[in-house]
Amino acid sequence: MIAIISGTNREPSMSKEIALFYQKILAEFGSNTDIIDLGKLPTDFLNVALYKNSGKSDAFNPMRIQMKMSAKMIFIVPEYNGSFPGVLKAFIDALEFPNTFKNKKCALIGLSSGSQGGGLALSHLTDILNYCGANVLAQKPRLARIEASFQDGEFSNPTYLELLKEQAQAFLDF
Amino acid sequence: MIAIISGTNREPSMSKEIALFYQKILAEFGSNTDIIDLGKLPTDFLNVALYKNSGKSDAFNPMRIQMKMSAKMIFIVPEYNGSFPGVLKAFIDALEFPNTFKNKKCALIGLSSGSQGGGLALSHLTDILNYCGANVLAQKPRLARIEASFQDGEFSNPTYLELLKEQAQAFLDF
Amino acid sequence: MIAIISGTNREPSMSKEIALFYQKILAEFGSNTDIIDLGKLPTDFLNVALYKNSGKSDAFNPMRIQMKMSAKMIFIVPEYNGSFPGVLKAFIDALEFPNTFKNKKCALIGLSSGSQGGGLALSHLTDILNYCGANVLAQKPRLARIEASFQDGEFSNPTYLELLKEQAQAFLDF
Amino acid sequence: MIAIISGTNREPSMSKEIALFYQKILAEFGSNTDIIDLGKLPTDFLNVALYKNSGKSDAFNPMRIQMKMSAKMIFIVPEYNGSFPGVLKAFIDALEFPNTFKNKKCALIGLSSGSQGGGLALSHLTDILNYCGANVLAQKPRLARIEASFQDGEFSNPTYLELLKEQAQAFLDF
Repeated sequence: MIAIISGTNREPSMSKEIALFYQKILAEFGSNTDIIDLGKLPTDFLNVALYKNSGKSDAFNPMRIQMKMSAKMIFIVPEYNGSFPGVLKAFIDALEFPNTFKNKKCALIGLSSGSQGGGLALSHLTDILNYCGANVLAQKPRLARIEASFQDGEFSNPTYLELLKEQAQAFLDF
Repeated sequence: MIAIISGTNREPSMSKEIALFYQKILAEFGSNTDIIDLGKLPTDFLNVALYKNSGKSDAFNPMRIQMKMSAKMIFIVPEYNGSFPGVLKAFIDALEFPNTFKNKKCALIGLSSGSQGGGLALSHLTDILNYCGANVLAQKPRLARIEASFQDGEFSNPTYLELLKEQAQAFLDF
Repeated sequence: MIAIISGTNREPSMSKEIALFYQKILAEFGSNTDIIDLGKLPTDFLNVALYKNSGKSDAFNPMRIQMKMSAKMIFIVPEYNGSFPGVLKAFIDALEFPNTFKNKKCALIGLSSGSQGGGLALSHLTDILNYCGANVLAQKPRLARIEASFQDGEFSNPTYLELLKEQAQAFLDF
Repeated sequence: MIAIISGTNREPSMSKEIALFYQKILAEFGSNTDIIDLGKLPTDFLNVALYKNSGKSDAFNPMRIQMKMSAKMIFIVPEYNGSFPGVLKAFIDALEFPNTFKNKKCALIGLSSGSQGGGLALSHLTDILNYCGANVLAQKPRLARIEASFQDGEFSNPTYLELLKEQAQAFLDF
């Protein structure tokens, strides 16, 4: 099973739109995916799902189990304050260790409103996923100026579409 | 005003203990400090204080304003999953941009249960604070095996105490 | 004394041109600077100036001493293979430790032919300079598509000129 | 073909010793390896093998071709100044792009005299190898206090030997 994680709880979000688009790309390659949307985290997530409460939240456990059951994971990662959203790391901190990520395979896509495409965000997240035991695909597209580049469900920037398709193919072979 | 941020909402936490200890070091140098304890974040923080709700949470705003009013900030940073806690980045994501950090001065202390002392956590956080406009003191003590090194409110490892005092002095001169 | 390090031994290089331009900016602010040009490293640098030979190369020692005597340093950093040039790190590896960098102040400017402006290069270099004891200015302009943005000794991109002037002023106040 | 890169030109070096040891581990698993020793770089490497001279050095080309022909690469990475040696990045800067690394597989081992084991060095190198198109194995053993931990060709620290064997097995399966 492949999971696509929409990496923010902001609503609405470009991350969710790109997650849905990526799902279609993988469907064209014949792969079924589930979207895990951080916008669906329980309201009191920080207080009921971490540390001594890890694994005890009925509201969060379905997402937690879905992550554990996924062999491959694709993270859609918006750039907030020069890195990825705090809520994405809090989500990772609430997952079962080490079985969620150990020997799993991950792919990362960076989004930014500005010109960087989340390069540092992807570097930080690679460090964390490697620490947790997951191998990360080298190809990590950085989609800059995302609001202008993706509109009405389509990429106006054909290079970005090409990068995502190449990554998707490489990830299925990874 | 100098703020000391206890960088996790886990309770109880070594970070809170080290924050209180660091406050005593700075008091010996004649400096008053306030502790900002992420354990005191409102339960529904993720849903009421971020993005379109930024600045609108009566429960969070006192911490938000305190950060904005601080000229210098000291972050006590535990290592979770090879980086710092997600809740610390979510806290940063909820602060006023760019006035909270622009041209401010920050010092970082890393804590870990394991042998690393949070080196990658401090690197990631430096990237973020620099992006937000804050200058970060070069000296960033990494306190490894923190549970064994700090007991009953005292460091059993005298090197660590020395590192913190040297950092505190350098930070006051920064 | 302020040193401007042109961070590659490639010749000719955009780094050298930007170093000369930055020197003019600082001259307008009334500051004298010296340029340290890695294009001037001795041919056998790797074999005569490192490790057990540290400090023993008559050809390299003038640059080594100049770095040690500088209180502030500005690094012009081109992006090579997703980070900064290896020769720049080899240069740092050949300097006196810890007196070259301890308690010094550094500013970084990233250059790239592509769209990233060297974000990861600047992050890596910040890690290293902090490790060596130097404080790094938060403002680190990233100048992307540098060949198109800087021609005939002038910036065609006025934003980049503004970023450099703001950084130069902030660095003099740092 | 698997290459083991001894990541420094310092002589003698612990990196070379660990490279030879790792070669024995892989031989026990039935795999042949070649060691690429940066101690063998030509004296004038920086001036004859980079940029406009890329691929033109008869003295360097055998190492360059060997890297290009290797499908898997293991980097032995000592910590110098909070990252990896400059000479290792200069070596990478002199290799053919993108065919040396694109779709290749790499494993990293960090060494340090101090207590960190080269965590930041391995993070920086992962960024670079990913940029160049190589997938990096998540398991990256950090061997701290290496002079005390490895003596007379044997690990006194049995955990380190175990970590290397586990990594070697995982890398053959990668």
